[in-house]
Amino acid sequence: MEKTELKDDKSKEVEEEQVVSPWEVSAKDGGKIDYDKLIDKFGCQRLDESLIQRVQRLTNRAPHVFLRRGVFFAHRDFNDILDSYEKGEKFYLYTGRGPSSEALHLGHLIPFMFTKYLQDAFKVPLVIQLTDDEKCMWKNLSVEESQRLARENAKDIIACGFDISKTFIFSDFDYVGGAFYKNMVRVAKCVTYNKVVGIFGFTGEDHIGKVSFPPVQAVPSFPSSFPHIFGNENIRCLIPCAIDQDPYFRMTRDVAPRIGYHKPALIESSFFPALQGENGKMSASDPNSAIYVTDSAKEIKNKINRYAFSGGRDSIELHRKYGANLEVDIPFKYLGFFLDDDAEMEHIREEYGSGRMLTGEIKKRLVEVLTDLVERHRRARAAVTDEMVDAFMAVRPLPNMFN
Amino acid sequence: MEKTELKDDKSKEVEEEQVVSPWEVSAKDGGKIDYDKLIDKFGCQRLDESLIQRVQRLTNRAPHVFLRRGVFFAHRDFNDILDSYEKGEKFYLYTGRGPSSEALHLGHLIPFMFTKYLQDAFKVPLVIQLTDDEKCMWKNLSVEESQRLARENAKDIIACGFDISKTFIFSDFDYVGGAFYKNMVRVAKCVTYNKVVGIFGFTGEDHIGKVSFPPVQAVPSFPSSFPHIFGNENIRCLIPCAIDQDPYFRMTRDVAPRIGYHKPALIESSFFPALQGENGKMSASDPNSAIYVTDSAKEIKNKINRYAFSGGRDSIELHRKYGANLEVDIPFKYLGFFLDDDAEMEHIREEYGSGRMLTGEIKKRLVEVLTDLVERHRRARAAVTDEMVDAFMAVRPLPNMFN
Repeated sequence: MEKTELKDDKSKEVEEEQVVSPWEVSAKDGGKIDYDKLIDKFGCQRLDESLIQRVQRLTNRAPHVFLRRGVFFAHRDFNDILDSYEKGEKFYLYTGRGPSSEALHLGHLIPFMFTKYLQDAFKVPLVIQLTDDEKCMWKNLSVEESQRLARENAKDIIACGFDISKTFIFSDFDYVGGAFYKNMVRVAKCVTYNKVVGIFGFTGEDHIGKVSFPPVQAVPSFPSSFPHIFGNENIRCLIPCAIDQDPYFRMTRDVAPRIGYHKPALIESSFFPALQGENGKMSASDPNSAIYVTDSAKEIKNKINRYAFSGGRDSIELHRKYGANLEVDIPFKYLGFFLDDDAEMEHIREEYGSGRMLTGEIKKRLVEVLTDLVERHRRARAAVTDEMVDAFMAVRPLPNMFN
Repeated sequence: MEKTELKDDKSKEVEEEQVVSPWEVSAKDGGKIDYDKLIDKFGCQRLDESLIQRVQRLTNRAPHVFLRRGVFFAHRDFNDILDSYEKGEKFYLYTGRGPSSEALHLGHLIPFMFTKYLQDAFKVPLVIQLTDDEKCMWKNLSVEESQRLARENAKDIIACGFDISKTFIFSDFDYVGGAFYKNMVRVAKCVTYNKVVGIFGFTGEDHIGKVSFPPVQAVPSFPSSFPHIFGNENIRCLIPCAIDQDPYFRMTRDVAPRIGYHKPALIESSFFPALQGENGKMSASDPNSAIYVTDSAKEIKNKINRYAFSGGRDSIELHRKYGANLEVDIPFKYLGFFLDDDAEMEHIREEYGSGRMLTGEIKKRLVEVLTDLVERHRRARAAVTDEMVDAFMAVRPLPNMFN
């Protein structure tokens, strides 16, 4: 298992069916991402029902809706994390965001909502990396603009409800250096240029900042990158992220044992679909492709009613006869992410799938759910002061991080 | 001029006559480095007599022996530095060392002796980069060992007599981050992988740490990398270094105007020859190839008498008849670096070149000069305390740096 983790990377070039990388997600022939194929190709494992039940037993609370509905569907060594947790050993969480836009959309919130659940359920510390350096390089933003966006995004992240006594948020531009930089160098020494080409598909005309970046995203996986938090404790790391980030952590897992660290474990989500459907793409250049946390109730209603791809039939008669196509229906899918009530979800599946519920009705319910979610987020974000951002981002010990 | 600075880099592959890179210096067919050819190839300028006289006029003191003897023989825009200095504009000096060995040899001292002269003559601030990260990556040293060597080497550097009120010494492992890291990212964005391959000859099997490093050596050329010293002042930078470092600064000069900085100026030295002669190589694995600042008087005498390649003839008779071959004579060359007295140097040239002075005599004089130099260095280094190292390496303003 271990030695073959990087083996399949080059197959990407040959079999150009679907591309999933940190910078590109595209399905075969404009269809849907084949997640089973992705699991095979990346060499990660499916997050099965027994693992979810085990999480429930260990945390003594209902599994998060993202687990119950298969949003987080793949993992690497998550079972090892649970094993060690069961034995009373410590671990920490690491997630992040590339701050390339002012406002987050719902897809951006998913890893943070899930990470908050993990933090609460396991009572563990969390580091959140804002890769302002990455976005400065990939999106050609100025250093200053990237840092400004990082701070704005930090407010949205804090609004997700993280526990300040257990959470350290950092900007790469602020934090790279010292122990963190030493680990970057240790990682870089272990990874050849050919290897990053195989993993990330860089070309000779890409700038060297891109080649230099993978160690930056790798090293928060190692506790010694945060001496103010973890001192010398070599504890395990669990990374909740979307599966497009897997290449970074395949690389990291390949290197970790060679430099004396645990391989980070991963728990990986599928992609949140665009309003236009699973073969559409949420795009910053098309504000109607996504619901933003800054959208007003009116905008949410308008976007869902006008743009949310429907699996409903062309006429009421056909709809009543055949029922909605739930496989492609965006309102149904979005509710799957954000409607916590399993009974109601099952009810909608039956009613809408059978044609008794109409598209207008499911859209109405989705508008309610999302308006409520976005309104709660807006209120929470409005309460986030600059002082709170400073407090979350202060380089400091977290003395009660496991309580 | 500007746009072609990087043009010739790829010619290295075709015309494999002599190789001069930061990691390899080898002459054609085991002969001597052709410095004229190097100037042509690199596209730098010869440091001519009129420039040296201008330095003398501007600084109101005799030019350093390394200028008078052509040790520093090439430059880029040094005339512009003098122009701006004449107008009362400020500049700063930047030099560095890769700390890969415990003890320095005489060749290592040359840039520092010269930089001290420049600091004294122009009364300017100086930053000295210890590239412990580079040596960790290239020499496969541990992070800790690289940092230990950096600190040991800092003591030797301080022993060269730098003015603490004008000098900041930093280790990359300690100092990379913040404003410095931001400049690294700005530089990295401007340099493609193909370009660093052209400049440095990296291959796909080289690790990405090597590809990531050039911006680290580039950014001390920009004053904003040292906000504690220069604030927002965009002053010029002059870099005294051996000419093998030119590739780093060709890259830096190419990038600088694109990110709003002055191109750094350079003043570049030839290489200090091995005891075995100019086609030999000073090598850490052969302690008899160089005089170290830790050598005892007895070791110095022994090394010079036994190993210093002589241009003297095979017999006294032949020597008296033909005179020494000064072109290859190492004692004569070493005296050229370290015997400050021009009259005595000229006397030796005549006497030894004509055969009236014997090899034993010139070697005796060299032993005296080097024993004295090394003894003075040893005393100065013994006086360097850990507190002094901390003081030179403290991140601090230098309020009197131009006085």
